[in-house]
Amino acid sequence: MCAGARSKGAACVGGATRNKRVPRAVREQQMLDAGVRAFARSGYRNASMDDIAELAGVSKPLVYLYLNSKEDLFTACIRREAAALVTAVRAAVERDAPADRQLWSGLSGFFAHTAEHPDGWTLLHVQARTHGQPYAREVAAMRTEIVEFVTQLIAAAAREHAREAARARTLAGTEVSGLAHALVGAAESLADRAGDGRAGGPSAKEAAATLMNFAWAGLGNLLQGRGWAPERIG
Amino acid sequence: MCAGARSKGAACVGGATRNKRVPRAVREQQMLDAGVRAFARSGYRNASMDDIAELAGVSKPLVYLYLNSKEDLFTACIRREAAALVTAVRAAVERDAPADRQLWSGLSGFFAHTAEHPDGWTLLHVQARTHGQPYAREVAAMRTEIVEFVTQLIAAAAREHAREAARARTLAGTEVSGLAHALVGAAESLADRAGDGRAGGPSAKEAAATLMNFAWAGLGNLLQGRGWAPERIG
Repeated sequence: MCAGARSKGAACVGGATRNKRVPRAVREQQMLDAGVRAFARSGYRNASMDDIAELAGVSKPLVYLYLNSKEDLFTACIRREAAALVTAVRAAVERDAPADRQLWSGLSGFFAHTAEHPDGWTLLHVQARTHGQPYAREVAAMRTEIVEFVTQLIAAAAREHAREAARARTLAGTEVSGLAHALVGAAESLADRAGDGRAGGPSAKEAAATLMNFAWAGLGNLLQGRGWAPERIG
Repeated sequence: MCAGARSKGAACVGGATRNKRVPRAVREQQMLDAGVRAFARSGYRNASMDDIAELAGVSKPLVYLYLNSKEDLFTACIRREAAALVTAVRAAVERDAPADRQLWSGLSGFFAHTAEHPDGWTLLHVQARTHGQPYAREVAAMRTEIVEFVTQLIAAAAREHAREAARARTLAGTEVSGLAHALVGAAESLADRAGDGRAGGPSAKEAAATLMNFAWAGLGNLLQGRGWAPERIG
């Protein structure tokens, strides 16, 4: 029964011949879909390769053949979800728009993506950060990339404002980096809140609007040199 | 050798007689100190009760006698650190001060405490959230308490501003709650950044000032009904 498939390489494994015409790349994505879902919902340790194979509609040996081990599958899931999130945010940003519009479009993209991919978000924000260094590093790298992206956006806006106002001083680099960290942390917190799944919770659009209001009215003032009365800091 | 101690109850266990005069409450705190350090630095699974006993300067049986199991020790560590953080933030807030001053004092207290207790912060923010529900619930409860506290602070400020401006409309409850989540997420992100331990990283005071500038200049505008131009939200 499996003889015909053998010439196609790995397609005939453990009774999965009924699916032998599905290309490997497609099959792998289905396994990753199943992995993301299982890891996010059951946790890394509790999710079994049996469950994942069943969710993907393939045999367990085929999962091992394609993705080698549970560790490698977990890594592949994290990488795919991290890349998808970064890509979604970058794609959403309206380049060449005013800084506030860029920020708004990026935030909208972030909240829309995390709302549409709640398992992916849980995988990145909870599971991946807590099962040892190789996984935590993947997520830390993604987070660093997003913080860096936001830092550049704020720095560009600060330079623009300083030029318009003919002011020499712009926000210090460490302050810009701090603001970017604050903004990313605020976005993560609101994405978690939105992902709580409680009825009547805020939509992705509302979360983006709340953070935009919070961040921009604040950043907008800072960019114009109007911080919170620092002379009162005791 | 142990006979004299026996009348004092549990003080003589597994060769720990040299410490028999240390009161149980003090000894327990030393075990929790050791637990927090070990769990934060090695992770829950890798931290061994042998290491923790050695760090605490007691025998392993004494740790089991006082704290029952590794699970219970972990829970006790989380509870102690969560309570300490909430207490530090509440104690730092200058009651009856203007809203901005209250927020500033609370943020200063938060960043000072997390900077002084980096292992406690790692325990709460990383370890406790990822080893199953009982632990995650402890931290979620603490976080809910802090978010609620910040929500009340913002709501009180909003009512105050609305009264001063003789405006009927104040910020909607869901928006206030969203702002509180954003603020807490931003604070967590900056606490992690400060805890990176890189030379030249921001101090607790600088982190508090960055977030205060970011949050208050934003909140201050929102409270006066000046959000980011919402009519431009596409």
